[in-house]
Amino acid sequence: MYRIGIDLGGTNIKAGITDKNNAILAQANIPTDLSKSECEIIGEMSELAKRLARESGVSREKIDGIGVGSPGVIDSAAGIVKYSNNFGWENVPLAALLSSFTSAPVFVANDAECAALGEAAAGAGRRCGNLILLTLGTGIGGGIIVDGKLFRGKCGGGVVGHTVIVKGGRQCTCGRRGCLETYASASALIRETNRVIQEKPDSLLAVKYGRAGLPVTGKTAFDAAAAGDVDAKKIVGDYIEYLGEGIANLINVFRPEKFLISGGVCNQGDSLFDPLNVFVRKNCFAADKLYIPLIERAMLGNSAGIIGAALLVPENEGRPCARAGAERKGG
Amino acid sequence: MYRIGIDLGGTNIKAGITDKNNAILAQANIPTDLSKSECEIIGEMSELAKRLARESGVSREKIDGIGVGSPGVIDSAAGIVKYSNNFGWENVPLAALLSSFTSAPVFVANDAECAALGEAAAGAGRRCGNLILLTLGTGIGGGIIVDGKLFRGKCGGGVVGHTVIVKGGRQCTCGRRGCLETYASASALIRETNRVIQEKPDSLLAVKYGRAGLPVTGKTAFDAAAAGDVDAKKIVGDYIEYLGEGIANLINVFRPEKFLISGGVCNQGDSLFDPLNVFVRKNCFAADKLYIPLIERAMLGNSAGIIGAALLVPENEGRPCARAGAERKGG
Repeated sequence: MYRIGIDLGGTNIKAGITDKNNAILAQANIPTDLSKSECEIIGEMSELAKRLARESGVSREKIDGIGVGSPGVIDSAAGIVKYSNNFGWENVPLAALLSSFTSAPVFVANDAECAALGEAAAGAGRRCGNLILLTLGTGIGGGIIVDGKLFRGKCGGGVVGHTVIVKGGRQCTCGRRGCLETYASASALIRETNRVIQEKPDSLLAVKYGRAGLPVTGKTAFDAAAAGDVDAKKIVGDYIEYLGEGIANLINVFRPEKFLISGGVCNQGDSLFDPLNVFVRKNCFAADKLYIPLIERAMLGNSAGIIGAALLVPENEGRPCARAGAERKGG
Repeated sequence: MYRIGIDLGGTNIKAGITDKNNAILAQANIPTDLSKSECEIIGEMSELAKRLARESGVSREKIDGIGVGSPGVIDSAAGIVKYSNNFGWENVPLAALLSSFTSAPVFVANDAECAALGEAAAGAGRRCGNLILLTLGTGIGGGIIVDGKLFRGKCGGGVVGHTVIVKGGRQCTCGRRGCLETYASASALIRETNRVIQEKPDSLLAVKYGRAGLPVTGKTAFDAAAAGDVDAKKIVGDYIEYLGEGIANLINVFRPEKFLISGGVCNQGDSLFDPLNVFVRKNCFAADKLYIPLIERAMLGNSAGIIGAALLVPENEGRPCARAGAERKGG
């Protein structure tokens, strides 16, 4: 069996065709044009899927379906994007539309959920039935696997980026104050770095990066901290503590076997993971008496989202009767 | 079939015998003597169970097993109390010991989990597969039902009282700072009330309750707030906000169909629930677009823990072969 997985991102739409071993046989990307309507964007996803099928040489009959990982809150049972802030989408029937364009059954989940599914099937979470993956990017996404299955609650659960860790703290885009993602997303790290560059013009951070006009990224504060800059060390130390508080909260509630994080900030390697693991181990409930997972880096990068999205297509979807059922559901 | 449910509390051990409709046929309580060893306490639980069987007139053969709700972190698969702060217990094989004393299969879970199971089966959570119950007492316990089953993670999950909502905030008994239970437990409310009585000797709170030597309870601040005391209004308002932050965090992650709270503070009725529901509704992610459960009062009081503990005994436990299997496991 073959499946198509599509990772719908704010910058790019990435798609791949996978085999039953979760290997990506062919892959293709197109830029996301947010000025276009939902129908146009979904039309482009359809063209991308058709192109992949053509280029991979896999006949249409052998492709069991299409899975899509989308930002935002998803009603997976109905295949609807309930709400995506980035896309400005509300109640978009993504599965039904893409299914009508492609004549294939379509399944939809949140993008971080798909990344977690991908890592669980083919990456750092293999042979592990209970895992959490946090994606650290513009915001913080969460994918939670419980007993081998995606955990979602009734509808649209897993919104871990919008759990308050500092009551009355920084303003979040969701309207609340003090959400985890205002402190521990990659954007939050960059914002803090820029703030210190502005406020402390004599700091190494400001002199080396600010005045030189170098672009500030999630790496900047880590680099300056490694070079001995006191302010940068504080930014990095605080960032790790905030992220650690959020992770310890999730471990206390979910007690997963594995805890993975992904996103560019993971490139910092040991200078991120070593102090993070020390903090988490110290702050989990009854840490000396109960199992605490090591916080590890996700393995698959962008492929996780594609592989996980493809895995939304059920295994028996290839059988004609199952396919007919799924099409009815998709439509 | 009949089951025995035991709610092991720090003050009392409450037990009941239930029928297949979750009705409690007979009930008995004894005080908990924390100075006794774990073996002695479990011996008393055994006597209590035997007395119940005798008094209810249900023959031993018709009792399918015993379920126990215990404070602390429980390894339910092994029937072990991994860690209970209140009892000073670590790795106590409760199921094996109680099973050897009673010759009945024994099953163990956390006490708040049992209360959630009880409410889901026979109380405010009936016909609801996804619910969360918070118990507001000395600490905060959490029982999470997902798809009709207790959710626990790999082992010892659901420790919602020890999720940080105020990074660097009040010192918690778990060693961390800013945990939900340091702000939103009944004890936290009483501590804050006492603090204001001490710090503001001219406040209505201090004059009416402090000087009069009346015992301060979770009701005190609510009463003084209703009488117009400004300081008490602030205590109550803050308490509701902290509790609301914790509840909104859990709703964002779990999206349950129902959200129940229990404990003496619920006696405050509308003066607690009305502002709490307003706060939660305002603070949940995408609250205007997604389903937000009403925060409701649990219905069953102390019976919830007994009924839920009894429900830990599987339905088919009555069959001789199933019972033999469970005994092997329990032993």
